[in-house]
Amino acid sequence: MSRKSNAKSAASGAAAAPSDGARALWGAHFSGGPAEVMALINPSVAFDQRLSAQDIAGSRAHCRMLVAQGIIDRSDGDAILGGLDQIEQEIEDGAFQFDPALEDVHLNIEARLTALIGDAGKRLHTARSRNDQVATDFRLWVRDAIDRIDSDLKAFQEALLAQAETHAATVMPGFTHLQPAQPVTFGHHLLAYVEMAGRDRGRFSDARRRLNECPLGAAALAGTSFPIDRAATAEALGFDAPTANSIDSVSDRDFALEALAAAGVCAVHLSRLAEELVVWSTPGFGFVKLSDAFTTGSSIMPQKRNPDAAELVRGKSGRVIGALNALLLTLKGLPLAYSKDMQEDKEPVFDALDTVSLCVRATTGMIADMQADQARMASMAGAGYAVATDLADWLVRELNVPFREAHNVTGQIVKLAEGKGLELSELELGEMQAIEPRITGALRDVLTVEASVASRTSHGGTAPSQVRAAITRARERFL
Amino acid sequence: MSRKSNAKSAASGAAAAPSDGARALWGAHFSGGPAEVMALINPSVAFDQRLSAQDIAGSRAHCRMLVAQGIIDRSDGDAILGGLDQIEQEIEDGAFQFDPALEDVHLNIEARLTALIGDAGKRLHTARSRNDQVATDFRLWVRDAIDRIDSDLKAFQEALLAQAETHAATVMPGFTHLQPAQPVTFGHHLLAYVEMAGRDRGRFSDARRRLNECPLGAAALAGTSFPIDRAATAEALGFDAPTANSIDSVSDRDFALEALAAAGVCAVHLSRLAEELVVWSTPGFGFVKLSDAFTTGSSIMPQKRNPDAAELVRGKSGRVIGALNALLLTLKGLPLAYSKDMQEDKEPVFDALDTVSLCVRATTGMIADMQADQARMASMAGAGYAVATDLADWLVRELNVPFREAHNVTGQIVKLAEGKGLELSELELGEMQAIEPRITGALRDVLTVEASVASRTSHGGTAPSQVRAAITRARERFL
Amino acid sequence: MSRKSNAKSAASGAAAAPSDGARALWGAHFSGGPAEVMALINPSVAFDQRLSAQDIAGSRAHCRMLVAQGIIDRSDGDAILGGLDQIEQEIEDGAFQFDPALEDVHLNIEARLTALIGDAGKRLHTARSRNDQVATDFRLWVRDAIDRIDSDLKAFQEALLAQAETHAATVMPGFTHLQPAQPVTFGHHLLAYVEMAGRDRGRFSDARRRLNECPLGAAALAGTSFPIDRAATAEALGFDAPTANSIDSVSDRDFALEALAAAGVCAVHLSRLAEELVVWSTPGFGFVKLSDAFTTGSSIMPQKRNPDAAELVRGKSGRVIGALNALLLTLKGLPLAYSKDMQEDKEPVFDALDTVSLCVRATTGMIADMQADQARMASMAGAGYAVATDLADWLVRELNVPFREAHNVTGQIVKLAEGKGLELSELELGEMQAIEPRITGALRDVLTVEASVASRTSHGGTAPSQVRAAITRARERFL
Amino acid sequence: MSRKSNAKSAASGAAAAPSDGARALWGAHFSGGPAEVMALINPSVAFDQRLSAQDIAGSRAHCRMLVAQGIIDRSDGDAILGGLDQIEQEIEDGAFQFDPALEDVHLNIEARLTALIGDAGKRLHTARSRNDQVATDFRLWVRDAIDRIDSDLKAFQEALLAQAETHAATVMPGFTHLQPAQPVTFGHHLLAYVEMAGRDRGRFSDARRRLNECPLGAAALAGTSFPIDRAATAEALGFDAPTANSIDSVSDRDFALEALAAAGVCAVHLSRLAEELVVWSTPGFGFVKLSDAFTTGSSIMPQKRNPDAAELVRGKSGRVIGALNALLLTLKGLPLAYSKDMQEDKEPVFDALDTVSLCVRATTGMIADMQADQARMASMAGAGYAVATDLADWLVRELNVPFREAHNVTGQIVKLAEGKGLELSELELGEMQAIEPRITGALRDVLTVEASVASRTSHGGTAPSQVRAAITRARERFL
Repeated sequence: MSRKSNAKSAASGAAAAPSDGARALWGAHFSGGPAEVMALINPSVAFDQRLSAQDIAGSRAHCRMLVAQGIIDRSDGDAILGGLDQIEQEIEDGAFQFDPALEDVHLNIEARLTALIGDAGKRLHTARSRNDQVATDFRLWVRDAIDRIDSDLKAFQEALLAQAETHAATVMPGFTHLQPAQPVTFGHHLLAYVEMAGRDRGRFSDARRRLNECPLGAAALAGTSFPIDRAATAEALGFDAPTANSIDSVSDRDFALEALAAAGVCAVHLSRLAEELVVWSTPGFGFVKLSDAFTTGSSIMPQKRNPDAAELVRGKSGRVIGALNALLLTLKGLPLAYSKDMQEDKEPVFDALDTVSLCVRATTGMIADMQADQARMASMAGAGYAVATDLADWLVRELNVPFREAHNVTGQIVKLAEGKGLELSELELGEMQAIEPRITGALRDVLTVEASVASRTSHGGTAPSQVRAAITRARERFL
Repeated sequence: MSRKSNAKSAASGAAAAPSDGARALWGAHFSGGPAEVMALINPSVAFDQRLSAQDIAGSRAHCRMLVAQGIIDRSDGDAILGGLDQIEQEIEDGAFQFDPALEDVHLNIEARLTALIGDAGKRLHTARSRNDQVATDFRLWVRDAIDRIDSDLKAFQEALLAQAETHAATVMPGFTHLQPAQPVTFGHHLLAYVEMAGRDRGRFSDARRRLNECPLGAAALAGTSFPIDRAATAEALGFDAPTANSIDSVSDRDFALEALAAAGVCAVHLSRLAEELVVWSTPGFGFVKLSDAFTTGSSIMPQKRNPDAAELVRGKSGRVIGALNALLLTLKGLPLAYSKDMQEDKEPVFDALDTVSLCVRATTGMIADMQADQARMASMAGAGYAVATDLADWLVRELNVPFREAHNVTGQIVKLAEGKGLELSELELGEMQAIEPRITGALRDVLTVEASVASRTSHGGTAPSQVRAAITRARERFL
Repeated sequence: MSRKSNAKSAASGAAAAPSDGARALWGAHFSGGPAEVMALINPSVAFDQRLSAQDIAGSRAHCRMLVAQGIIDRSDGDAILGGLDQIEQEIEDGAFQFDPALEDVHLNIEARLTALIGDAGKRLHTARSRNDQVATDFRLWVRDAIDRIDSDLKAFQEALLAQAETHAATVMPGFTHLQPAQPVTFGHHLLAYVEMAGRDRGRFSDARRRLNECPLGAAALAGTSFPIDRAATAEALGFDAPTANSIDSVSDRDFALEALAAAGVCAVHLSRLAEELVVWSTPGFGFVKLSDAFTTGSSIMPQKRNPDAAELVRGKSGRVIGALNALLLTLKGLPLAYSKDMQEDKEPVFDALDTVSLCVRATTGMIADMQADQARMASMAGAGYAVATDLADWLVRELNVPFREAHNVTGQIVKLAEGKGLELSELELGEMQAIEPRITGALRDVLTVEASVASRTSHGGTAPSQVRAAITRARERFL
Repeated sequence: MSRKSNAKSAASGAAAAPSDGARALWGAHFSGGPAEVMALINPSVAFDQRLSAQDIAGSRAHCRMLVAQGIIDRSDGDAILGGLDQIEQEIEDGAFQFDPALEDVHLNIEARLTALIGDAGKRLHTARSRNDQVATDFRLWVRDAIDRIDSDLKAFQEALLAQAETHAATVMPGFTHLQPAQPVTFGHHLLAYVEMAGRDRGRFSDARRRLNECPLGAAALAGTSFPIDRAATAEALGFDAPTANSIDSVSDRDFALEALAAAGVCAVHLSRLAEELVVWSTPGFGFVKLSDAFTTGSSIMPQKRNPDAAELVRGKSGRVIGALNALLLTLKGLPLAYSKDMQEDKEPVFDALDTVSLCVRATTGMIADMQADQARMASMAGAGYAVATDLADWLVRELNVPFREAHNVTGQIVKLAEGKGLELSELELGEMQAIEPRITGALRDVLTVEASVASRTSHGGTAPSQVRAAITRARERFL
């Protein structure tokens, strides 16, 4: 493939009219046109047009600062602001034509601005570069996305807390190894996810705080000789401060990585709840019934309620973590400052943060709608000597038996009950005393699921009283 | 969010008319509509419409088999085939309206078929399920993608071989640790990538062979009671055989994982060459000049040729490997047979295989167009006592000095030359003999870059004669 | 941290005696010693000593070739071979002292060889470099690991086939979305994993074939001027041929990546079966009882059988895929030929391939030992109108009702049964005829789980007859 | 593999004496011994013994709380504390025998305690479970590791700041696309990494704050009926508070994931600097000379300084990110509360945090020791019309030319200079005036590398004055 044939074959592609495109801006010294494949691999406007609103906001702040600092005339500034208003409207109306030959959202908007307002438009890019511009736009987008996800997660916590309140005393088996281990309450189990979502919000909030410095003014990479006021643009765009180092400003994508990492952990949390919803929805468990809104069915198997939404939430953890990997890989070993590899930063972030938001909302809907089958939960909670630890703890607490010995005694009593096909509470007192003479009738009070649950009153324990207190505290901490 | 409010709020979404959508097929027992967020998370037609051609091909084969086996009438079969032709044309013309309410490409096409031909259309799905249908469609798509990539990689090898032939004797530094270590030829270096591409083709080819079994006939998961002929549909679709187990047929996505793994390794290869092109293009190296077609520039820095395409190829390795991760994660821990999580299988595969194809083509273009600066290469190849190993090998070969001792002697001679600021070939014979008396004037013949390179005649070595022989063999093996 | 203080502080570390270590070989021109932290980060012998056997095998082959080609004397060759025998014995006996100051396994063995046999030992490294040496050793190790895993997977298939034979007619629910969808047999379900393991073996086998070329003779990167016989060393080491390009030979780690990718897919398969074993072991399902050998328990909850081994197998998929990622990341963007980054190639491969082997063996043990609770399986298989599709298929097959209409009719009949709290087979004929008059008493024959399963006789279907035939074929294909 | 044969074959393994091991604690109802392969896959003590110090610290706090709450006697408490002291000493002395048959560090220590002090030892586990115990131990370990890494990163910043101060005015090319774009100072470039390290410290610090809640008291998963004081144990162990939910407490590994994510981003930063060190060390660049302490060499190529440490740092980013992936994968889809999969949490965390600490220290050493070749840097900084943007900015600033037009004019002037083979500063004033008549002799003042750099005085820009101010601020912010 010689360059000549490229130039020719490119005639049918976006590169057909280089004089109309970005190449006009930088390509004067280039004799050959871009290859057809270059027209496929190089432009970013197909996806970075999602940054339009942020790009315009950034340009407005930059323009006002240029005027305030006397770098451009007020009249030019007014023309620019008017042009940006019109462009914003065109984009909202779907009337704006994004042109791949203009490579990216920045050049598309600037070209349109100059077409609308003439020479004044050519002054907007003073003391600015696409490098600091895109870094600013992208931070603004990620910041907005974090705010949306925070709101989504808060609604998720609200839904969990509402169900937890309803089920503060609803017993269910607490699992280890997916085997019933000790009775807990359903409300208590749901509160575990309130904590996870709380930490997720904390991580996103920390990421937001750390990203909230404005790269604008770093220019290409070295800063600028124009007397700009970086504090002013930072403040106008809601940033806490300008960034500290111009090279770092255009090279850094930590804010994207950190948001992706927070999203990845959040996606894992959602996948765990989704797995539980799938398992709980099986006929073998039957703990919950998901609503029609979040399930699909079979026209001929009426009881079949496929937990599609839960499965999608579980499965989508893959793409979120895949996106985190993609960006880590892209940035690995990349020298400073800007390299074109970094154009690959946006799509994974757009997709992963959109996905996490969607998954949180879908999970919120499932939780809000789900109906618990308390009888099924209670039945499994009580089966299989689940109160054996209560017996052992009673021996320690009341008879001062060393913990490990108490377990031996309990094991013997359980074995006796098992041999007789009885629950522990069904054994005769005498039978138990034959094994441990000091046992009294008071023991029987602890050998029910309800008593077991009620007794776990340690801070953060599953006793309904603790669960209700935890709900109150959670509302104060999170809502 | 109660179910009622969902149903209401969904009025503005795709779920607005459930009676027209997929829910009509399976939702008779469901009183609530899908949630609005479900309308966002559940349908796949936005991306799985890329399987349209494969879906129609699969339906044709299935239909013909049903007729041949007497499961449906020939007249119904003819109607179906006619309807499929029309739908195919509508899709090609961009006239087909994909409806998210119909969830996926399969139901969209079937609904359109029934709209076009009536009751006969309702017979097509006999002895079939969406589970085996999508498994078949997706295999066909991946098979096509593999064939495209194989062709791309072959063209890449051709471009490499053409440049290797041109530069079979062009000396350059061979690097370890990115430090010049021994002279090699540029052609020899490029042939390393011919080998990598050859193994990549081998991996894709093995993946193709392993995927080339037809799941059609597995039905939902258990097979079917209809007297179908799975061998016939397999053959009609170019598969080697039907799959062996119906549950595996609808659960298995190995073919996608394997193609992604092959793509990931290929992307790593491309990233290595891209890195070299970036480094070689710096003014510090100046080994190659990439063509205008694959670079961008600066309107005010004429010598600045930014290797954008190479950087994008390097950066895009992230998304390819991210896609591999995404699917591995999605499938991890997934019980058999079909779960909705598996709907997440397509987008990473589409994106990663498209990306690898694009990256191979962009790299091919860069290689075909690049111009080597032989003087710069030769200059760095000869600097820094790069022929010191040739001196040591001469001592071993001609004087029978043990290898490790020969290195000691060489080290002393190099130190002498370095102290005098001379190249090894510039030392007086007597000076060398003062260190090792047996050295003769014949030594000097090996102390040039050209002699060094010419001497590496071991199989696969860098001697131009070996390089030319390797090119001939590579053409036989790969083209 | 100045260099001086490093040199001093290093006195307590491995770098204490540079004259005894590898630095003696290459450090004559270096005035400063390595930093203490360098002594921690640089040596590889702590892990690459696992390559000892391969390194000695490679040295033997290289030595014999050098003698055969007249590059070293036979007497030197005999001394070397004798020394290598002794070193091999010392390593087997645990008497060999690996010294981190000698960096890696290669220099450790060579240093010991010279200590044992004197000058002849200094000749072994003629026409060789650590670069081609380690590439050879590592390939040999991976090849051995692949052979072990292939054997493990074969034993796994044997265990699955034995259980499949026992349970060729044992009915269980076939799941989609973890909801019972259609009855299948347990044997059929297990055969799905026989297929997965078969593909895994195929991938490992392809990886083995592709890796089976010998890098020895590539030397540092350029080949060598000595008249070596690469075909001879390749053959002696069981390789099919020498590698084709010397630079590729020392840069390529495809064989490791490909083995890791095969391991990753295999680990995903194992995680799916492990998930099923965990779910099947819950009291809600109760399908299988894992043996004491693969579970842990509770001293006080006798029925609690924690499926630890299954959970570990499921969880260890993380480290296998993590290892694949690690190596992909390490190699991304790495210029040719050898860079020190590549020292990071071994640990992930050792760990991942060891892990997969262990997980396959643990899973084989679980499968071999597990006891199926046929009553529990049959009970869930029959619940929930699981034979509804059989009814619909009967309508299509016997009454020629279009498939989609047959589903409508079935839906009405199921609704009727559901309303009455009856199974389909319990409905009166007349009741069904009120919905579809052409229904006959013959319908009732298909409305049992056993009839459903028996009817799925399509190739690869779940009918016991098909399952038994599939077992026979699988034994021919795989064992 | 039958259970019997397992039991027998296990005679040679760790499972040989089940009555002495953990199985004794929970295996009374189990008739079969563990399989041999189970003895390989199940125990964790080979790696979790790294938690010994944390385990003992946790036991001390728990014991003191039990005494204070009157749950155990003071005399028992004193015996326990004495026993723990002795065990701690035994471990420090290397005299403690960890036994795989006792599964994990917790049971090993408890068994030894009971052996030492008798019955009192059996009381320590009252109101505790291995589930909350390991969660506590592991948090303590991660907290310690974070503190170490924070200290490492601070030292790294100090080394960078020291070099930045030395080179506040040392000019070098600022790169985009690894092509010189604008002159910057070396100090300014290094400050970019000070910012990255600062954010890394911020992320680790946030992770530390979020993890700093104490799970102890969550018991198995439900809390406990003993009157424990969770606030007391939390405070004794330096935690800010007890965790809020007992199920979350034993299920949550966010703290590990978050530390791994912070480590992953940090590893990417280090890989970028490592890449730069590798490139800067090539003869083509020659910007820096790494010290002998962090390089390796060749006995026969004295100028060859292989940047091994930099390459290892770059390569080790793979294992850190691989570890992050491993744990994300392991936790994906895992139901609450404790599952054995979670035993896989420790090794990736140990390895990744150790690795990051080591890589930071190695990089600190390289930075502290490196010597910059100011002449090479300056030479490349001035080549290729690197001050063209200064010319354009002058036109905007002094002549009020619109930015985009100024670039056109600049392009013409550069083309003129290029045609004549001159630098911009070498053009005659008249020649430039022929293109733009308003140009004055004052222009020439901006056309030097030094002037260019000095003019970038915007906040965070590369002007030496800004760099020095930034160093002062960085010391205040970070040291």
